Amino acid sequence: MKINGVHYRTIRVADDGWSIEVIDQTKLPHEFDFVRLVSADDAARAIKDMIVRGAPLIGATAAYGLCLALRDDASDATLHEAYAMLAATRPTAVNLKWALDEMVKAVTPHGGRSRVEAAYAAAAKICDDDVEICRQIGINGLKIIRGVAESKPGRTVNVLTHCNAGWLACVDWGTALAPIYMAHDAGIPVHVWVDETRPRNQGASLTAFELGGHGVPHTIVPDNTGGHLMQHGLVDLCIVGTDRTTATGDVANKIGTYLKALAAQDNDVPFYVALPHTTIDWTLSDGVREIPIEQRSAREVTHMTGRTEKGEIVTVEISAPGSPAANYGFDVTPARFVTGLVTERGVAAASREGLLSLYPERRDG
Amino acid sequence: MKINGVHYRTIRVADDGWSIEVIDQTKLPHEFDFVRLVSADDAARAIKDMIVRGAPLIGATAAYGLCLALRDDASDATLHEAYAMLAATRPTAVNLKWALDEMVKAVTPHGGRSRVEAAYAAAAKICDDDVEICRQIGINGLKIIRGVAESKPGRTVNVLTHCNAGWLACVDWGTALAPIYMAHDAGIPVHVWVDETRPRNQGASLTAFELGGHGVPHTIVPDNTGGHLMQHGLVDLCIVGTDRTTATGDVANKIGTYLKALAAQDNDVPFYVALPHTTIDWTLSDGVREIPIEQRSAREVTHMTGRTEKGEIVTVEISAPGSPAANYGFDVTPARFVTGLVTERGVAAASREGLLSLYPERRDG
Repeated sequence: MKINGVHYRTIRVADDGWSIEVIDQTKLPHEFDFVRLVSADDAARAIKDMIVRGAPLIGATAAYGLCLALRDDASDATLHEAYAMLAATRPTAVNLKWALDEMVKAVTPHGGRSRVEAAYAAAAKICDDDVEICRQIGINGLKIIRGVAESKPGRTVNVLTHCNAGWLACVDWGTALAPIYMAHDAGIPVHVWVDETRPRNQGASLTAFELGGHGVPHTIVPDNTGGHLMQHGLVDLCIVGTDRTTATGDVANKIGTYLKALAAQDNDVPFYVALPHTTIDWTLSDGVREIPIEQRSAREVTHMTGRTEKGEIVTVEISAPGSPAANYGFDVTPARFVTGLVTERGVAAASREGLLSLYPERRDG
Repeated sequence: MKINGVHYRTIRVADDGWSIEVIDQTKLPHEFDFVRLVSADDAARAIKDMIVRGAPLIGATAAYGLCLALRDDASDATLHEAYAMLAATRPTAVNLKWALDEMVKAVTPHGGRSRVEAAYAAAAKICDDDVEICRQIGINGLKIIRGVAESKPGRTVNVLTHCNAGWLACVDWGTALAPIYMAHDAGIPVHVWVDETRPRNQGASLTAFELGGHGVPHTIVPDNTGGHLMQHGLVDLCIVGTDRTTATGDVANKIGTYLKALAAQDNDVPFYVALPHTTIDWTLSDGVREIPIEQRSAREVTHMTGRTEKGEIVTVEISAPGSPAANYGFDVTPARFVTGLVTERGVAAASREGLLSLYPERRDG
């Protein structure tokens, strides 16, 4: 998508033809800058420190991390070592493992220099495929927004989203935000309630930044607000992303998603989850019990970074000194709260049958 | 309650015998300091700027605000003018109006200097009564916590609370926190999940400060977290306060309370609301439609104040510059989500019949 009229992807091969550049998302919204990755260690650190985040982009970064490892040493030993290191960076998003497995499949037949070339080609394909998948998710989700718009002609369609499942979470377009961009571009009056998404504020810092950059009307709200908005008819539909989806349609997404799904159900607001097939974990059937939930540093809760009036970037302690804090990264929204799953192949019920109707090749797998 | 072994109330008459001192809650948890109020204007500003907050303390501060006005001029005109100004400071908490009405009743028979004396006496009585009411709420709520403790002998009772309904919200003891203090003092192993309570972080800054000061084990969590905790059996019960309770048991409390009540119901976790009778608005029967919800400055959402490593108190912008934000202060939790109302007279169902069983004198009113 564009910032100040210039088109960007979140990840790209640098002009040197081998090193990787990613937007440093820890500096947004205050600074927009690319950071260069020259080794698998760099890629792992970028994922762990959330310089990149979002399930699809984590996968793409891990893929290029393997390229960087193989460029140093194209041996099987290095391949497996880098695979293990990159796979261990974050536990919840399943695209990470999917992308690494795709890479292994692509490079295993090759050796030496040809293995490195195969790796870069495979990583580029993962990125290009992700862009096309997100575009298809946008087209499928657009139909839902168009339906709502037609039910209230001339009036604004209010969409609530949580965290960032926009182009910054992917390579381009985004998952949950792709339909919103397309609706806006199609002239449908759309307004987005942006959950700020504590503790890392991906909503207020990334989603608001993206939507603002593209000119989509939006309003940041504290995560506490969605229920009140829905009680008062101020939300027409919710769309969020997911980091891992079970074969039965349970979704693990940024902590707090479940609370919005509860409010949506209590107020008859449709609750959609947008995802590429790469976030489906066909091996799982009970999200609450089976999906591992990352726990991160308490400091992400007790401290906050922002910009002073003088323009300095400063970190301040915001809670009672000495009080412990817990920081669970995700929660699981059971399928019974999900109105529909929006994938690159269409919209389906959040259930095993619904997913199999879109991915019939999985019936025998 | 105590801080570093010294007992405090949140509001007191100064040593000069007439001016009023209140803890400046905008500076907590970083600085603990009293600020002096010498006029009704000061009192109104203290309420509006949230130097004092919490439904009972707002009422007490407004009561002393009337004292300060009458001390300047004990006329009926001043009484009514100050009443109107103080009543307009915040729209949701109904204790404000209740306290002002009590004051008018107490001072109307008197004139001149005797009116001023009657005012100070009435304000002091409002404060003393609030302390006793909160103590009784604590005793009644303690029975609930004791019941949970007996059902899991030797294991910690985990309580989730939202915002601050502790002694800092009242004159002493608190509403939702009074039972927790009493349980802790009675040797029941209790641990509190403290919702940070965006945008003003009353949980992370005030509740954590209070609980830490009294030695009650607690953990700060982002507001997004409660659903996940309840899904995993990590919450035995929720207790929150309320700023206005309808005659039918709907409760308006800090924005986000409704989301926790939804999660409690979905996970069979008891959800209690603690309140003094002064927060009941007997004229209302539909909280979502009838209770006015305050909207505050967007800056409370987009900016955050905290302490740097060097000890400076600094305000930083935390969201995308130029993005608008909305700031609704409260939401309404319908009675159907409330397990019980804990008042100074006992515990009742959140319903008209439940409330009337505790306040039978209202049957004919």
